[in-house]
Amino acid sequence: MKIYKKGADASYTLGVFPTIELLKNQPDLVKRVVVHSSIEKNKGYPLIKELCEKHHIAIDVHDATIKKLSPKGNCYAIGVFHVYEKNLEEGNHVVLVNPMDMGNMGTIMRTMLGFGIKDLAIVRPAVDIYDPKVVRASMGAIFSLRVKYYESFEDYHNEYGHHEIYPFMLKGAKNIHKVKPTGNYSLIFGNESSGLDDSFLNYGQSVFIPHTELIDSLNLSQSLGIGLYHFTSAQFENKEVLR
Amino acid sequence: MKIYKKGADASYTLGVFPTIELLKNQPDLVKRVVVHSSIEKNKGYPLIKELCEKHHIAIDVHDATIKKLSPKGNCYAIGVFHVYEKNLEEGNHVVLVNPMDMGNMGTIMRTMLGFGIKDLAIVRPAVDIYDPKVVRASMGAIFSLRVKYYESFEDYHNEYGHHEIYPFMLKGAKNIHKVKPTGNYSLIFGNESSGLDDSFLNYGQSVFIPHTELIDSLNLSQSLGIGLYHFTSAQFENKEVLR
Repeated sequence: MKIYKKGADASYTLGVFPTIELLKNQPDLVKRVVVHSSIEKNKGYPLIKELCEKHHIAIDVHDATIKKLSPKGNCYAIGVFHVYEKNLEEGNHVVLVNPMDMGNMGTIMRTMLGFGIKDLAIVRPAVDIYDPKVVRASMGAIFSLRVKYYESFEDYHNEYGHHEIYPFMLKGAKNIHKVKPTGNYSLIFGNESSGLDDSFLNYGQSVFIPHTELIDSLNLSQSLGIGLYHFTSAQFENKEVLR
Repeated sequence: MKIYKKGADASYTLGVFPTIELLKNQPDLVKRVVVHSSIEKNKGYPLIKELCEKHHIAIDVHDATIKKLSPKGNCYAIGVFHVYEKNLEEGNHVVLVNPMDMGNMGTIMRTMLGFGIKDLAIVRPAVDIYDPKVVRASMGAIFSLRVKYYESFEDYHNEYGHHEIYPFMLKGAKNIHKVKPTGNYSLIFGNESSGLDDSFLNYGQSVFIPHTELIDSLNLSQSLGIGLYHFTSAQFENKEVLR
């Protein structure tokens, strides 16, 4: 296994927890699992063994591979998987236009899963979601989402223009507090530094998240968390306990 | 100037933007400003000069100091300031119990400022907010907040037990959607990995942010962003434009 490079046809999870998420959610894509010889004590290992056995996936004990792919140590399992792309399904979507930060991307995936939105469109140029840093930051959430890249927002809009489109912008026309979705919606967020350009004022209902003038803007993952909390509230507001 | 160590009586901003925030908001605490010889072209420099002149603060051109404190480059100004602690004021508070992540802490400070909450209590053990990494991540927001450390939550509670206390917990007794504050409140958040322990169920009205069972929990800064968005909504929901 080589260190991942953008465009490679296989990538890998780093660590026991994301490897379990991979095996649980995308077993058909797994090429093999590599573990460190000291994994025996790890309490996640029985589950890795069980899932690999169930899906006829080989487990190799190979410390040198682990060390090569995760030089900082503290990694006991690696799941090698085929890079894949899935078509989105009808339902609510998040659309990220030109996201560039790997750590952010992972957090965003996890937050989406937390609010039950499983379809993510990404408009290029954008971060490579199969980079092991994104996979790690997502804590495996990536394996429960459908993610599709588009060359332009127009391309996405041609497929999903029938959705309620909500671009999140500092110049947004409506206060998010005053907006409630009535059908399937797509929440659109721009790049970490520059946001969405003014052309997005022409799509659907642009919204802003009000805040004080003491900061320039909320950061992307905060805006997304707040946006999802607000837009999914009908689904969660009557829940009496978390679990 | 030495590289900052926890407990030192002076720390410093790294970069033009946070240095300006320091000079604008806490000029009395500034010991001096150090700039790189190539700062002349930087468009923030005239404002730094103006603020230093106004407050009689010396500007030293000293590339070696900049290089020592910011070895990665890309830093043109450093503001050296006395480490300070301020008493909290009456009003709404955020209380962080045992926060440990420097980057998170900076983001949290910025988000607080964005929602107009300027008082932050931190229960030790905790990250050192004067670490230049926190100052940088806060993008200078730290200089607009009042931050006070407490040795225990009891110590904070002895001072502010008359507030409405809302501990954010996975086991929280009430869905956040069902909770509205009626007076001054304190929002309590636990450590990044372990959250708040069960003893916090005994304080005020514990709340949970509902999410799917597909993730273990939202991360600390997401929870805080959502919590602030929700609790401050009365103040922002009628704003017609962001700026």
